[in-house]
Amino acid sequence: MNSQKCNCGKAAVYLRVNEGRHYCGLCLTRQIERNFTRTVSKENMVKKGDNIAIGVSGGKDSMVLLHLMDKLRKKVPIKIFAITIDEGIKDYRNKSIVVVTDLTKTIGIEHHVFSFKDEIGASLDELKESKFCTKCGVFRRYLLNKKSRELGATKLAVGHNLDDESQSIMMNVMRGDAGRIKRKSGSNKFVPRIKPLKNIAEKELVAYAIVNNIPYFEGECPYSLDNVRRDVQTIINEMEAKHPGTKNQIVKFGEKVTFVKEPQDIKDCLKCGEPSSQEVCKACQLRGEVKKI
Amino acid sequence: MNSQKCNCGKAAVYLRVNEGRHYCGLCLTRQIERNFTRTVSKENMVKKGDNIAIGVSGGKDSMVLLHLMDKLRKKVPIKIFAITIDEGIKDYRNKSIVVVTDLTKTIGIEHHVFSFKDEIGASLDELKESKFCTKCGVFRRYLLNKKSRELGATKLAVGHNLDDESQSIMMNVMRGDAGRIKRKSGSNKFVPRIKPLKNIAEKELVAYAIVNNIPYFEGECPYSLDNVRRDVQTIINEMEAKHPGTKNQIVKFGEKVTFVKEPQDIKDCLKCGEPSSQEVCKACQLRGEVKKI
Repeated sequence: MNSQKCNCGKAAVYLRVNEGRHYCGLCLTRQIERNFTRTVSKENMVKKGDNIAIGVSGGKDSMVLLHLMDKLRKKVPIKIFAITIDEGIKDYRNKSIVVVTDLTKTIGIEHHVFSFKDEIGASLDELKESKFCTKCGVFRRYLLNKKSRELGATKLAVGHNLDDESQSIMMNVMRGDAGRIKRKSGSNKFVPRIKPLKNIAEKELVAYAIVNNIPYFEGECPYSLDNVRRDVQTIINEMEAKHPGTKNQIVKFGEKVTFVKEPQDIKDCLKCGEPSSQEVCKACQLRGEVKKI
Repeated sequence: MNSQKCNCGKAAVYLRVNEGRHYCGLCLTRQIERNFTRTVSKENMVKKGDNIAIGVSGGKDSMVLLHLMDKLRKKVPIKIFAITIDEGIKDYRNKSIVVVTDLTKTIGIEHHVFSFKDEIGASLDELKESKFCTKCGVFRRYLLNKKSRELGATKLAVGHNLDDESQSIMMNVMRGDAGRIKRKSGSNKFVPRIKPLKNIAEKELVAYAIVNNIPYFEGECPYSLDNVRRDVQTIINEMEAKHPGTKNQIVKFGEKVTFVKEPQDIKDCLKCGEPSSQEVCKACQLRGEVKKI
């Protein structure tokens, strides 16, 4: 069928609904890579000599990120390494870690794995309680930052895509929480985080991974329980369908705003020395609860 | 039934769903008036000697605002007057204006009416075209500001409620438009706008008006077409039902953020001299289109 052809004439593999345009694998790949490069350069995410830790879970987003960062280092003199946090989720994280290890070996970079069990004292499977997502998120971000810094990273790249970003911004709006959008940090213990995929839609990352034979782990976390995020996801997807471009607009909004009240002073946690907006950081507070179990 | 009693023991007339609490007319009235006073004082909306123009359409929000501002001037030495913009909508605005005139006579304040026909050259009924809501909004805000200033107002009070405010903020987020949330104004031709009802939910204003016998016009504008706002309204109402307090949180978010890029320089419109972010203001641009009809 004629409509199933890419503009270049080749057979199409992907339909970008916003544009009503079909893409062949090569044209889609070029688009995605241009989007990545534009985001990286527009926000000065990477500079010569950077040593970039890449948070890689093994899912499609982080595996595409790893692939794109590997291509980037062939053009810009930077070093990269992968870091995975093993929350200790049977039949899920143990399987996804293998995928990361394989790709890091193939491209010849270091891969560091740190576990909740070793670092926090318990795996997620052992934490028989609710609020998994909140705790897991706190510990994962805590460890990613701490370990990246200890390994000498100048940046920490994470695989947040357009869907994740727009959802996070919208959740902040609905929580009246402007502070989270832009945090004024006085601490030099935060490794600057970069999100090179934040302008690429989730489904385009899936298409990119398939077209470019990038392996990834497809399972869904068995503890996934974040109802607010799920509601927000539904809302944004509905608005995107009715008013294409909504996700991009929300991310653009997030780039423009900053909070005017409640600047947060970041100090060192009294217990572990990691940067925190409170006397004792959230991770140490939660760690206290873990020990009581 | 016991559950239908207010905490004070009287028969309840209103159920506040968030709290699962029933209110009698007097307790509800106290709550609403406390909310109004708190918003006014927290944001220093009113000071001694102010001459406040109140934009009154005749609908529930603006009629409650008029009633509350009338009560306020008995405590704080301020002057108030009402201003109505007559867009020229048959069987709608002509009817609502009568309601405003009656109440302003009863409480003994001036009431000024300005029409699109006189000021713009055509009534809304004569503008046989689409995009009514956009044009109408531009002209209405333009005239409210201009006429308030010419009448010597130090403030312009408008009846935007919690629902309106949260919708406007959300629409800005979904349009990637941080500039509209807080506008850095260099012009002294803008009469400062205050929104004393922005923390009161629409349905509570209806209940307040009924309990306190405040007359208002109930009709809906026949041109009401703003689909994006309607979608956003649906979304926010769904989130409010699932996560009570969402509307308040969104308004709180709007108070906290400010834009970091794209500050707008406000200059005088080359055609009419009113403040504008462009060489020729939006109202004059639209007025040009009106003349061509």
